[in-house]
Amino acid sequence: MSLQEILHRVQNGEISVDQAEQEIQGFEDLGFVKIDYDRESRTGFPEVIFGRGKTVEQVQIIFSRIYQKHGKAMVTQATEKMAEIIQQDFPDANYDPMSRLITIGHGEKRFAGKVAVLSAGTADLPVAQEAAQTAEWMGNEVDRIYDVGVAGIDRLLAQRKRIQEASIVIVCAGMEGALASAVGGLVRRPVIAVPTSVGYGAHLSGLTPLLSMLTSCAAGVTVVNIDNGFGAAVAASMIQQAIKEGPLGE
Amino acid sequence: MSLQEILHRVQNGEISVDQAEQEIQGFEDLGFVKIDYDRESRTGFPEVIFGRGKTVEQVQIIFSRIYQKHGKAMVTQATEKMAEIIQQDFPDANYDPMSRLITIGHGEKRFAGKVAVLSAGTADLPVAQEAAQTAEWMGNEVDRIYDVGVAGIDRLLAQRKRIQEASIVIVCAGMEGALASAVGGLVRRPVIAVPTSVGYGAHLSGLTPLLSMLTSCAAGVTVVNIDNGFGAAVAASMIQQAIKEGPLGE
Amino acid sequence: MSLQEILHRVQNGEISVDQAEQEIQGFEDLGFVKIDYDRESRTGFPEVIFGRGKTVEQVQIIFSRIYQKHGKAMVTQATEKMAEIIQQDFPDANYDPMSRLITIGHGEKRFAGKVAVLSAGTADLPVAQEAAQTAEWMGNEVDRIYDVGVAGIDRLLAQRKRIQEASIVIVCAGMEGALASAVGGLVRRPVIAVPTSVGYGAHLSGLTPLLSMLTSCAAGVTVVNIDNGFGAAVAASMIQQAIKEGPLGE
Amino acid sequence: MSLQEILHRVQNGEISVDQAEQEIQGFEDLGFVKIDYDRESRTGFPEVIFGRGKTVEQVQIIFSRIYQKHGKAMVTQATEKMAEIIQQDFPDANYDPMSRLITIGHGEKRFAGKVAVLSAGTADLPVAQEAAQTAEWMGNEVDRIYDVGVAGIDRLLAQRKRIQEASIVIVCAGMEGALASAVGGLVRRPVIAVPTSVGYGAHLSGLTPLLSMLTSCAAGVTVVNIDNGFGAAVAASMIQQAIKEGPLGE
Amino acid sequence: MSLQEILHRVQNGEISVDQAEQEIQGFEDLGFVKIDYDRESRTGFPEVIFGRGKTVEQVQIIFSRIYQKHGKAMVTQATEKMAEIIQQDFPDANYDPMSRLITIGHGEKRFAGKVAVLSAGTADLPVAQEAAQTAEWMGNEVDRIYDVGVAGIDRLLAQRKRIQEASIVIVCAGMEGALASAVGGLVRRPVIAVPTSVGYGAHLSGLTPLLSMLTSCAAGVTVVNIDNGFGAAVAASMIQQAIKEGPLGE
Amino acid sequence: MSLQEILHRVQNGEISVDQAEQEIQGFEDLGFVKIDYDRESRTGFPEVIFGRGKTVEQVQIIFSRIYQKHGKAMVTQATEKMAEIIQQDFPDANYDPMSRLITIGHGEKRFAGKVAVLSAGTADLPVAQEAAQTAEWMGNEVDRIYDVGVAGIDRLLAQRKRIQEASIVIVCAGMEGALASAVGGLVRRPVIAVPTSVGYGAHLSGLTPLLSMLTSCAAGVTVVNIDNGFGAAVAASMIQQAIKEGPLGE
Amino acid sequence: MSLQEILHRVQNGEISVDQAEQEIQGFEDLGFVKIDYDRESRTGFPEVIFGRGKTVEQVQIIFSRIYQKHGKAMVTQATEKMAEIIQQDFPDANYDPMSRLITIGHGEKRFAGKVAVLSAGTADLPVAQEAAQTAEWMGNEVDRIYDVGVAGIDRLLAQRKRIQEASIVIVCAGMEGALASAVGGLVRRPVIAVPTSVGYGAHLSGLTPLLSMLTSCAAGVTVVNIDNGFGAAVAASMIQQAIKEGPLGE
Amino acid sequence: MSLQEILHRVQNGEISVDQAEQEIQGFEDLGFVKIDYDRESRTGFPEVIFGRGKTVEQVQIIFSRIYQKHGKAMVTQATEKMAEIIQQDFPDANYDPMSRLITIGHGEKRFAGKVAVLSAGTADLPVAQEAAQTAEWMGNEVDRIYDVGVAGIDRLLAQRKRIQEASIVIVCAGMEGALASAVGGLVRRPVIAVPTSVGYGAHLSGLTPLLSMLTSCAAGVTVVNIDNGFGAAVAASMIQQAIKEGPLGE
Repeated sequence: MSLQEILHRVQNGEISVDQAEQEIQGFEDLGFVKIDYDRESRTGFPEVIFGRGKTVEQVQIIFSRIYQKHGKAMVTQATEKMAEIIQQDFPDANYDPMSRLITIGHGEKRFAGKVAVLSAGTADLPVAQEAAQTAEWMGNEVDRIYDVGVAGIDRLLAQRKRIQEASIVIVCAGMEGALASAVGGLVRRPVIAVPTSVGYGAHLSGLTPLLSMLTSCAAGVTVVNIDNGFGAAVAASMIQQAIKEGPLGE
Repeated sequence: MSLQEILHRVQNGEISVDQAEQEIQGFEDLGFVKIDYDRESRTGFPEVIFGRGKTVEQVQIIFSRIYQKHGKAMVTQATEKMAEIIQQDFPDANYDPMSRLITIGHGEKRFAGKVAVLSAGTADLPVAQEAAQTAEWMGNEVDRIYDVGVAGIDRLLAQRKRIQEASIVIVCAGMEGALASAVGGLVRRPVIAVPTSVGYGAHLSGLTPLLSMLTSCAAGVTVVNIDNGFGAAVAASMIQQAIKEGPLGE
Repeated sequence: MSLQEILHRVQNGEISVDQAEQEIQGFEDLGFVKIDYDRESRTGFPEVIFGRGKTVEQVQIIFSRIYQKHGKAMVTQATEKMAEIIQQDFPDANYDPMSRLITIGHGEKRFAGKVAVLSAGTADLPVAQEAAQTAEWMGNEVDRIYDVGVAGIDRLLAQRKRIQEASIVIVCAGMEGALASAVGGLVRRPVIAVPTSVGYGAHLSGLTPLLSMLTSCAAGVTVVNIDNGFGAAVAASMIQQAIKEGPLGE
Repeated sequence: MSLQEILHRVQNGEISVDQAEQEIQGFEDLGFVKIDYDRESRTGFPEVIFGRGKTVEQVQIIFSRIYQKHGKAMVTQATEKMAEIIQQDFPDANYDPMSRLITIGHGEKRFAGKVAVLSAGTADLPVAQEAAQTAEWMGNEVDRIYDVGVAGIDRLLAQRKRIQEASIVIVCAGMEGALASAVGGLVRRPVIAVPTSVGYGAHLSGLTPLLSMLTSCAAGVTVVNIDNGFGAAVAASMIQQAIKEGPLGE
Repeated sequence: MSLQEILHRVQNGEISVDQAEQEIQGFEDLGFVKIDYDRESRTGFPEVIFGRGKTVEQVQIIFSRIYQKHGKAMVTQATEKMAEIIQQDFPDANYDPMSRLITIGHGEKRFAGKVAVLSAGTADLPVAQEAAQTAEWMGNEVDRIYDVGVAGIDRLLAQRKRIQEASIVIVCAGMEGALASAVGGLVRRPVIAVPTSVGYGAHLSGLTPLLSMLTSCAAGVTVVNIDNGFGAAVAASMIQQAIKEGPLGE
Repeated sequence: MSLQEILHRVQNGEISVDQAEQEIQGFEDLGFVKIDYDRESRTGFPEVIFGRGKTVEQVQIIFSRIYQKHGKAMVTQATEKMAEIIQQDFPDANYDPMSRLITIGHGEKRFAGKVAVLSAGTADLPVAQEAAQTAEWMGNEVDRIYDVGVAGIDRLLAQRKRIQEASIVIVCAGMEGALASAVGGLVRRPVIAVPTSVGYGAHLSGLTPLLSMLTSCAAGVTVVNIDNGFGAAVAASMIQQAIKEGPLGE
Repeated sequence: MSLQEILHRVQNGEISVDQAEQEIQGFEDLGFVKIDYDRESRTGFPEVIFGRGKTVEQVQIIFSRIYQKHGKAMVTQATEKMAEIIQQDFPDANYDPMSRLITIGHGEKRFAGKVAVLSAGTADLPVAQEAAQTAEWMGNEVDRIYDVGVAGIDRLLAQRKRIQEASIVIVCAGMEGALASAVGGLVRRPVIAVPTSVGYGAHLSGLTPLLSMLTSCAAGVTVVNIDNGFGAAVAASMIQQAIKEGPLGE
Repeated sequence: MSLQEILHRVQNGEISVDQAEQEIQGFEDLGFVKIDYDRESRTGFPEVIFGRGKTVEQVQIIFSRIYQKHGKAMVTQATEKMAEIIQQDFPDANYDPMSRLITIGHGEKRFAGKVAVLSAGTADLPVAQEAAQTAEWMGNEVDRIYDVGVAGIDRLLAQRKRIQEASIVIVCAGMEGALASAVGGLVRRPVIAVPTSVGYGAHLSGLTPLLSMLTSCAAGVTVVNIDNGFGAAVAASMIQQAIKEGPLGE
């Protein structure tokens, strides 16, 4: 709706003043939260709910509003309790205890090309699945290539072709995070590294692979926060959007 | 050259056994270094020389070989001394003491769209210039948007349109690195954050903006090492290459 | 009571030697604790009980003594158990499980002007509420402005006027803590930043926003400990007291 | 100038288009820097130049423009070289090698009440002087109370009255930073703590007093970055401004 | 027993070969532990059992052997479970859940002079009590001076005489640990500082007061590990032993 | 002088008001420093000048005043430049470039018993010498036992008797600092550990031996700051003073 | 099987295409894991299952496949639950709750010489047992020498001969980890140090002994991750294999 | 010499009492150093001089004594100045400014098999050369395999056979240190990892590859301190000695 349209509708009593204010501002103010309805038009993707640190009630309310507005919604780092409550109202909402994502309105494929999601070990799967499922929900085709850590380099090289064919490569690795460097040298496409909190002792809950990936000897690898499979998938989707839409402002 | 061609030329004495070995392996072995001539065909960009920790003589030899092979070469984190020695043999080589890059064979624009390089403050310029000049050398058009830190939010918002029109946004910021989050919420294109070592005390030589950018509240921001303007430009160029070449392996 | 008065009363048997000692010293010695009754006259505000690390019994005794002396009392970082026990004796005592404050004798507005309490996200609410409720208990009018993190800069700017009208601004933010810098550049009043422990991975349980706020590019921002909404409210009240009482010692 | 006035002057040719743009935007864009002329009206104080990380030429240009606009200017963390170059053009500019401040147009007293600046030891003087001189330049009367560290508690208590009479207390301390806590318990006015980098070993270049001050047992102490005497003085001036101007927006 | 005596007894069948070996070596080897019976003659005090990381069974066996040998025994960092099991066999054994010490054979006063144990706050009591009870068990008279943190400096100074009369001063403090410095400047006797894990956020589980105490501006303060009240009491007892026994080897 | 005496002398014009004030306060106020003349009567030892962070002029003035008052003086962490300037006025002042101490009025032996100063390696000598020379200046007899690190345990054990005969043992060790634990188990006297900054890499400029000594498996070892040989010697002298003077306040 | 053999069998229908692929690749791909059957022929030892971070079901499946292939299997960091499930299918599988290892097919002695496993204290036993049992499972004879920490140096020296006779020495130590240095100076055989997480406060969950061991004054000590008894045993077995097989490639 | 022989020679006046003491003790005591002449018979290799932190004079004296005793000597981390002074007395002494080793009496090959020394990049050469030259001086044949970092995995795999043929593999890598993991999975021989200080920013002067190598996904990799090529070579030589001498004590 254009500004004129909104104002006409207010004049005609078709929408309330509150609704109009929310349309003009682009967000709805519920006091404890200001839901950013404008984000999809601004960035290409609707707001996603970060579950950690929110109460079940807060998540429930925000989920409901976003779903009403966009016809889809997602919660990251969600608890089982959050999933139960939401599924009471939205039986179609899906919850995966491994990735801890609640999703509804999972979108069809919007982008050409594939996002490859690699994991170094089996224990990195929760993060890899968060990345893969988020990427799918955002409209990407995903190629899962799991358990290809560098201690068995032949297992990695056996997948070389699949990796090179992806449009973007997401590498999830705990321990020392060496996989990002090995992959970074093999491809002509962006590599996004996700350190995981899998490890112990000198692994420092993921700080070690985080720092390791940041100092990768493979130029051009970029990094997101520990266990942030979601963030890697968003970055990948932004790149996919750039590929699809091509240059702006020309 | 295909493998057959190479072997025929050896048979005919057109090339030496050493040259043939190097062609087949894809790298030349000088003992202290193995130059990776194959990298351009593999990743789209030739090997770049990391100047730090190398002797002037080592840099000189590697520079010379890469230039002979590719017709262009670049050294990062180069000293004035390295520049002097190289310019004796290659008077066309350029050295910028701010970005500390030595470049030769600076390429023409290969990619549509622009890479925006933002800096939060004037003191971040060396890093921003490393990013900008690397991106240009790799074939990108660059839009420099400097001194737009969040403490004067109106200076940033005055550039909103230019930033949103870029294909990729590189954000260089020292201090607390807040610029990355503010920009990350404004655009529908990938944002690559570069923390800089500009600051003191609790800034911890750049660790603070590094960690800050990794925990950005703007989803999808990816991060490179402190002061690594070069790495951000390589990542941006990889994305540009993905935009230009489109999906692979279909 | 002046010293003379106290001594006369001892002479007359109106008060015991113990009571007199306590009046003269300004504190009561219970062995495990020395309650500082003098603090209100010295600093303007009575002693507040820091609940963490104390047993329920200790909190109960101290609460009771302070309430008898001052007619009001507050416990920070209180557990539900502490609240239950105290409410048995003091049914008027209030406990908020979100802010984890026990309060009684909540004071009326003593100061002109408002303290604005901002939160970057919904998950920062427990800290923001600790700040807001403490400020109110100390006699301030509070303006709560929640969920205005910089990733949606327009949500922040929509509140610009309210923020600028406050006498002091408290900014509670987890993640990367960028909100403090953005606000610091907008106002002509003191800004107190409170990093929160909301985040994960590179967020380091709040160290990242703490360091980030300390290196803010906005000059004049001061910082308190992670999650210390209480401390920010005390600092704000000290400033309010300075505004109200004006210059001393002239 | 109002917007109308500016536009009339453009119409009449009294000012150039460039000048008009700068007046409307509130900042001047020199490419490597955007000078924020609007800051004084917005925050009460003009922009101050952070010397570190800037070239001598950059500082010289920015200093000159700010002085032309505001009739006063200040550079923090300035080198001797910067001072020499600036004094060639501005012989009235003052440079103190201890505080490393370049100042010109040092203002008269604007605020009632005093800012007390305390130092724990003699070695903390450069930071204490940065705070004191900045506060004076911003219009405060300053009371310097030096070498009152807690290891000689009687030296501190001998100054109790002077400290309690100040409107704001700035405490500069290296080593373990204990002075902030001792002072925090004595006063009914805001205390701003500045950790200094004076110390060695476990002092961690100032991180130890920084962390120590943040966890002070005296409620309401706020903290700025290590060695940031300047920031403490700005925060103090903001409080002074709040005292002087009283509540806003009522 | 001298070596000759031991051998004669073996010859006469008065003691077994195993007992003789243990007497000569000075320790008993139980496989998982080698109990150091010689320690009392070597250092003045018998071995104390560090409860953490041992199983209940291991603690039970070692306790029993040490008690048989020395007529007294102590376990630090003991769990309730350990206490229960031990009290089944040794009903006289005492367990204090606050200090988490199990003791038996608590010794009479062996040393002249007093050990003063100070705590900064009520929450530091578990550590202070560990120090005080250990010191008593080792034969010291203890003067407990609790809740004298520097935020109420007059509470501390009111105890100045008691503190100065002690032979050794142990200072237990969490938060920023400033009490050690204040006390260090008041006395002509050794001061041993014990940082406690009482605090949150920037307190870093006790690292902050640890580092703070190590960089104390009061010369001659020595420090033990976080929460190590036991170690402080041992160090104090070593000093008491030196006072009692006077110079050796002369 | 008693207070009465001082006042009589003022009355009689024997001393000036300034001198009287200084006598009563116990310190002299030079603006940038408050010299603590009272410290010797309070703690047993006069104030020592910490050279780091002070200007040569400041050190010169303080040295001169302390020497006039006490007939002896010491500067720690002194530069060659400081020594030169001071020796111009005080030719008897001694400077040792290894320990970086300036001393004058080096006292005769005041205490019975010896302080043993151990070093693990040759590179730890500067710190060991700072400890030894400070201890001597304070009136101790010192037994230097150098280069007895645990990697050659027989070298250490060959000195067992000398070590056990000392009244206090100071252990200076860099690298991993293991010497403190080995010595701690051998003696019935207090052990003070001084980590040194000798090492590289994971040694973290001395943090590693510092932490290592704090977690020593030998109970009762206390620790001072990295390279703080001076502090260890002060602590040892406090213990010597306690041995000499015996219990107080009885 | 040679490649020819495999292909013949496929041709003859003796094995399926899937089996053949797995034989040629050297690993089996189960989607979430790629089991590396080739590892035994490549490195001398079959793949071991790292239990942490895997679900019980994942461990169960991998265990079963490896056992079928190799006739032996091991899980490290296994939970009781994992053991229960596996023992349902493999009653011969053994689980030790102290070392948290599940083993089956425990091998006979393959190597001459002994691996000595030392522990500093009783609380280090879980790690020492992980090392000892792993070493035994890999075919080594193990000599357990427990509770020989340096605080009782005579207990260590009493074992000098046993330690010197071992072919490799593994040293498990928590606290400050000093045992590694003391042992490193005694032997002419490789020493592998394992820091343990036994300790508190400045021990930093094992980081302190880790760093301490890395900076050991005994040259030639190598280190593995905190609590990684398993890794130390693998390294020891690699050395044993080198001793047994002698030089390669000659 | 046996003890009897030594005593007879003293009796006969063939050697002095000082010489006899030194022979019996196994070390010579020069006050600032105790030279460990016994080390060669105890560990197989003579004492090596750690140059850092020693004065030129100290190094000169120790070098001279060791050379007289053993006919060979080595200094690590030596300065040019040390080399100059030593070469005046020992013209045959060799100094390599890259590895910073001074060596004399470089030994012939004592061990069968080869030590492979790998470096990830050209900038790691100083450390790799320290390892290689130390290994050679200790009697090993060394195979140098340089510049095989994982970003060009084919360069590494091209050397697979040479690496697998070595008896021990030393891996020197800066940046993220991923090479250790890749190599660890390829070989059946011990791998010793040396992190180097080559890198910047998040590389933390080598802490990142250090931590990374400690958490390697390749089991059995052991690690030495940052830049400690010397230590890796000693560990390798200990293994070589074990291979050569076979099991002890049987």
